Amino acid sequence: MKAEVLTIGDELLRGEITDSNKSFLSERLLTLDVETRFHVTCADDRADMADVFRCAAARSDVVLVSGGLGPTRDDLTIEVLADTFGLELVLHEPSLEALRGFFARFGREMAAINEKQAWFPEGAEVLDNPIGTAPGTMLEVPRDGLQGAEGERSSSGGSALFFCMPGVPRELHKMMDEQVLPRIASRRRVASWVRASLLHTFGIGESNLDEMLRDVALPEGVELGFRTQFPDNHVRPVARAASAAEADAKLARSCELLRERLGALVYGEGEETLEAVTGRLLRERGKTLSVAESCTGGMIGELLTATPGSSVYFKGGVVAYWNDAKTALLGVPDAMLKQHGAVSEPVARAMAEGARARFGSDLAVATTGIAGPTGGSAEKPVGLIYVALASAAGSQVRELQLAFDRERNRRLTAQIAIDWVRRHLLGASLDLPRLGRVERKS
Amino acid sequence: MKAEVLTIGDELLRGEITDSNKSFLSERLLTLDVETRFHVTCADDRADMADVFRCAAARSDVVLVSGGLGPTRDDLTIEVLADTFGLELVLHEPSLEALRGFFARFGREMAAINEKQAWFPEGAEVLDNPIGTAPGTMLEVPRDGLQGAEGERSSSGGSALFFCMPGVPRELHKMMDEQVLPRIASRRRVASWVRASLLHTFGIGESNLDEMLRDVALPEGVELGFRTQFPDNHVRPVARAASAAEADAKLARSCELLRERLGALVYGEGEETLEAVTGRLLRERGKTLSVAESCTGGMIGELLTATPGSSVYFKGGVVAYWNDAKTALLGVPDAMLKQHGAVSEPVARAMAEGARARFGSDLAVATTGIAGPTGGSAEKPVGLIYVALASAAGSQVRELQLAFDRERNRRLTAQIAIDWVRRHLLGASLDLPRLGRVERKS
Repeated sequence: MKAEVLTIGDELLRGEITDSNKSFLSERLLTLDVETRFHVTCADDRADMADVFRCAAARSDVVLVSGGLGPTRDDLTIEVLADTFGLELVLHEPSLEALRGFFARFGREMAAINEKQAWFPEGAEVLDNPIGTAPGTMLEVPRDGLQGAEGERSSSGGSALFFCMPGVPRELHKMMDEQVLPRIASRRRVASWVRASLLHTFGIGESNLDEMLRDVALPEGVELGFRTQFPDNHVRPVARAASAAEADAKLARSCELLRERLGALVYGEGEETLEAVTGRLLRERGKTLSVAESCTGGMIGELLTATPGSSVYFKGGVVAYWNDAKTALLGVPDAMLKQHGAVSEPVARAMAEGARARFGSDLAVATTGIAGPTGGSAEKPVGLIYVALASAAGSQVRELQLAFDRERNRRLTAQIAIDWVRRHLLGASLDLPRLGRVERKS
Repeated sequence: MKAEVLTIGDELLRGEITDSNKSFLSERLLTLDVETRFHVTCADDRADMADVFRCAAARSDVVLVSGGLGPTRDDLTIEVLADTFGLELVLHEPSLEALRGFFARFGREMAAINEKQAWFPEGAEVLDNPIGTAPGTMLEVPRDGLQGAEGERSSSGGSALFFCMPGVPRELHKMMDEQVLPRIASRRRVASWVRASLLHTFGIGESNLDEMLRDVALPEGVELGFRTQFPDNHVRPVARAASAAEADAKLARSCELLRERLGALVYGEGEETLEAVTGRLLRERGKTLSVAESCTGGMIGELLTATPGSSVYFKGGVVAYWNDAKTALLGVPDAMLKQHGAVSEPVARAMAEGARARFGSDLAVATTGIAGPTGGSAEKPVGLIYVALASAAGSQVRELQLAFDRERNRRLTAQIAIDWVRRHLLGASLDLPRLGRVERKS
């Protein structure tokens, strides 16, 4: 089955905004095991749209169209679709009533211009839009009457199934899931149902992850994909089955097996962030946290406080960028700074312990290092970073040698520090990340 | 002139990565006043690519193709292009020599597979690629032999000018600017040369900005656009002229006039960030800065230290999330917190003064407020935020009532604090932002 996604709108062609509907529609097609073959974007222009509809009908079996269903004169999708394939527009009374009802619910009278949204090409099926004014449309276009771009075509015969959906993401998402996907599944031969999930891991490189999972006995029809989203690596189990329920069950079982194998390397699933997961653990265990940041410059505090309600467990932090701030605000001894330098194991430890004491928190993490691109020396090169964790049980410090740019060295350091808090709360080891370009020096 | 941009690659259709070449090419076409009419993406598949090339040749005058020029068997652009329009491939000896030279420079022998990159459709012009192995191609395809998708076409006759460029962004950018744009300009009637810039403003809403600039006497042929990129608003002067030099001159004059009118509201141009501009001012004037953050949670420190070399002027900060941290680390009197609450004018002032004293910095900024979505009360609603600036000349505090979500309330607060430092250093007023949804309560 060949699928094509068409998005319509002048604003999409300037490249200033990301066309997220396109990605969404292609991703949802994958749940029916359908790969999108063409993405096409064109302007709100009659001739251009007709061109695009004709090309799509000639080469694709399923055509998803987003946008151009509004009430204004720029909204041309339905008119041009009917025109292109020589169809009349007919009034759909139930849609007109629904439109009137929609406006009545908001205590407003429907403008005459909105009536346009109740007209559809003859033979089209109307798709309800319970959360907006623009209904969708399904239209089957027989390919026999069409002349393809090259005259004779391999894909001639059969038909192209057009689905027109509103461009408003919320409405598009609902219509795609509830109305379009089931119709594709019943009208077109669907090879299999597909369900996928995304397990977030931190602390292991992609190839090591692959290696670790090689002999997990996943249910038949389940494949693993891997995605890197710095500083994390994600595992993506994809389950295929003859029914949606069976695919769901296979996926659940796979996630269970993967979590069993990976243990604390998995910190979350789907949309969960490391800082939100860590915050939830702190809250559940009634523990508080403070931070002492040098090279991360406030990033750990910023990440932790991005989660609403973080004031329950996050007491605060010190960004000790200059040495005298490390002394004045964290009590790092001046002699220690002189002897070992700011980027050193004892200073990292003293920073964490200083923060823990001054904020009176159960836990404290500290970072000190050289993020780059300048500031390194032969003895202390760019990327040399220390992370420390202080708790009632004492302090632990690790030396890292990172090899990314400034931004990613800082981001990775912040992630390690937050992950240490999570691991500490879970009673897991604080082993260093086995990431591609992190080396442990000692 | 109708222009079309084609990008080729399986990975682009899954929506996992952003297809930045597409935006780049459309943006560069605008410098010749050419709007892109179609964006098309297809997989590395012979039949699909042929389909796409045929549709493009039938409807567009200029077709920019990115990707598929590599040496592997997945790289099909040139072969399919020749095939589609019934052309033979011929060996281009100078390209073969250039390829051999390229490998020789790296001390490697050229693999047989790379020879493929020296073959081009008959009649094509080869475009040098001085920084990669894949040369580009310009091919003029007469439209007369083509049958459009609808048989007879309004745009029939004439020809479509194809430009194939490597998908590697660095190589694509260079080839587009140095070889493709001049050829389009000489082969196609270019209406005008266009030059544009982007002035970053902070502290004024889009409609006020428009209003303020209404009577600026810009040179003829210059238009203004406006773009919002939270928390900033950008002004985009676009200059059109009969030559590139004339367009450059008009643009420079426009920027001058706009800066004159807007004064300190403009903080930078092009890629400049507020924190980098503010850092440069601190460095130039030999001043140091510290911060005391409550609701921004470390974001100001994080933004300031994202700029390499910021340790010259940024001494550090305190993230005082809990009240006892405000007392212990910034010396905010306990009685003041009890009397006025943490979110109050006296506490913001005491935080800034406390940071300035403890860090021994020339300047200090402080933030305290309720970022939301919870934590507000009737007296102190969500969005109530205080920003303070302390200097040798004394302290200034302002009360804000922001009406965004947590993330944007925090981001806007951080931007206001950094902008105050910039304005203080410039001797400009610390007037509150006249942004759409910021209200000044007192």
